[in-house]
Amino acid sequence: MNTQGYVLAADVGGTNIRAAVINPDGSIRKEQRVQADLSAADVSENDVIDALEGALTGLVGDEENITAIGIGFPGFFRGDSGILASSPNIPALRDVELAEAMSKRMKLPVSVQNDGLCAAIGEHQFGVGEERSNLLHITLGTGIGCGLILNNQPFTGDNGMAMEFGHLCVHTGDKARLCGCGNYGCVEAYASATAISSRYAKQSGQHKDAASIYKMACKENKAAINVFEEAGMYLGLAVAEAVKLLDIHLVSISGGLTGAWPLLHAPLISALESNLISPQRGKVIVRRSSLNDNAGLLGAAMLAQTLLAD
Amino acid sequence: MNTQGYVLAADVGGTNIRAAVINPDGSIRKEQRVQADLSAADVSENDVIDALEGALTGLVGDEENITAIGIGFPGFFRGDSGILASSPNIPALRDVELAEAMSKRMKLPVSVQNDGLCAAIGEHQFGVGEERSNLLHITLGTGIGCGLILNNQPFTGDNGMAMEFGHLCVHTGDKARLCGCGNYGCVEAYASATAISSRYAKQSGQHKDAASIYKMACKENKAAINVFEEAGMYLGLAVAEAVKLLDIHLVSISGGLTGAWPLLHAPLISALESNLISPQRGKVIVRRSSLNDNAGLLGAAMLAQTLLAD
Repeated sequence: MNTQGYVLAADVGGTNIRAAVINPDGSIRKEQRVQADLSAADVSENDVIDALEGALTGLVGDEENITAIGIGFPGFFRGDSGILASSPNIPALRDVELAEAMSKRMKLPVSVQNDGLCAAIGEHQFGVGEERSNLLHITLGTGIGCGLILNNQPFTGDNGMAMEFGHLCVHTGDKARLCGCGNYGCVEAYASATAISSRYAKQSGQHKDAASIYKMACKENKAAINVFEEAGMYLGLAVAEAVKLLDIHLVSISGGLTGAWPLLHAPLISALESNLISPQRGKVIVRRSSLNDNAGLLGAAMLAQTLLAD
Repeated sequence: MNTQGYVLAADVGGTNIRAAVINPDGSIRKEQRVQADLSAADVSENDVIDALEGALTGLVGDEENITAIGIGFPGFFRGDSGILASSPNIPALRDVELAEAMSKRMKLPVSVQNDGLCAAIGEHQFGVGEERSNLLHITLGTGIGCGLILNNQPFTGDNGMAMEFGHLCVHTGDKARLCGCGNYGCVEAYASATAISSRYAKQSGQHKDAASIYKMACKENKAAINVFEEAGMYLGLAVAEAVKLLDIHLVSISGGLTGAWPLLHAPLISALESNLISPQRGKVIVRRSSLNDNAGLLGAAMLAQTLLAD
């Protein structure tokens, strides 16, 4: 038996849970992806705990001494308490003591935090955000998440909701698109994988996922190229708003949609630069995550390690 | 001679400088307002130093032992260095060691920082921001300034420009108004005193300042009421963007235009609430400064006191 402890980490997505055993140096020892649909309206706290236990158990060998568990979850948490205030994806869960319940089940210390913030923490420690005191990290997938590192610390705001980058408004006109949040013109309605899929369907009449549309774009399909370039442009507008307010000079982006980086990046930068105030122009770097979508897992593990240091 | 030290503070505006002697407890001992037009394109570093010296000298009596000087100035500063990187109002000044030059002239330790940030610091310490760890403070006058307090510390961003709230975009359409910064749709082009004056002129053909238009609004002049309500609405849209990103639950507003609070407040709150994501609704308080426009002076004095503590 290894005397040095490992940490278990989980990153909860809309349709699956990624789980990993994390080495003491923060690297991934082994991992697995488990199907788990937590998007139904009637999902209960117990369903979530069962799904997490299922994803984590079985991953651990006899020789591995697990000391803590860190979980990235799509929802708003009350500070570092591990209490889930609410989750846009699972409206039935409100004020759930998720860390405590999970800790009872697994007999280990557990930290749970917003998935976008976990990704920001991981990217800041191990990815392109290293050596920066401020970082805006964006997760670009089915939806758009975000995490902020300010003065080298995760920033969560007064009520754990300082990550609603996806709902910054990038279109104020009458034709602004309706977002899942109920408002109009949110960047999530323009630059998420869902938005790309729906925009392409509207233009071509064909329903395809973002990955398939990207493949078509690579084969010079005009409509496919257009929807990605448009998404990049709107993403740039939203990044400009964040930079004007916070003057953060490094923005990192992770998530499935970064596979389309060659198409997204140029229009993103162009829209960003033209919407900054002039002394900020030319100073902001937007980089694709260097962590192959492991930022969230690594950040969740770091928060678990913090539990042990306390 | 009093053995306890006083601090001199100055708040530099577009057309005048306010100067004050500040008591050790942070309250204002005496103050004066001096005309000083620093808006000409050819204003030099020496002109600025002369104007500041003129405003501060003569205010101090023989019995007052001045220990330091704090200045709030409309421009971007490199961290706490007192080096003015640039000023939107005075383009000729770039990379000016303003604190050092002023310190040589006055033979005292001098701190200089962005005026909006000084106001935020003052409001956080003495005004409606007391006992809050996070504060978004907006200065609403000829232009729109801003300062952020995050985790009880002034936040300036990577390059001292984390205060460009005035240039958040609130109108993305073809008819968006041109802002002084060169972009279209900035909230400053919709909710500053300048914007109110220009909007009223467009509607009525009469050129009046914001104070006169407010008086007419109080006498039920429809056009006058409309421009203030419209300004409040756009201000609410910009505050919503900041709250979505930072989840700050207290917003304070100072500056001349807060005289029109009764007209601005309701449309501001209405636009703010309807543009937040649903779990944030009903949680954000927007309050008028309680410091009678002294927030900037008091904040500048606090920064000067920090110099002495170092």
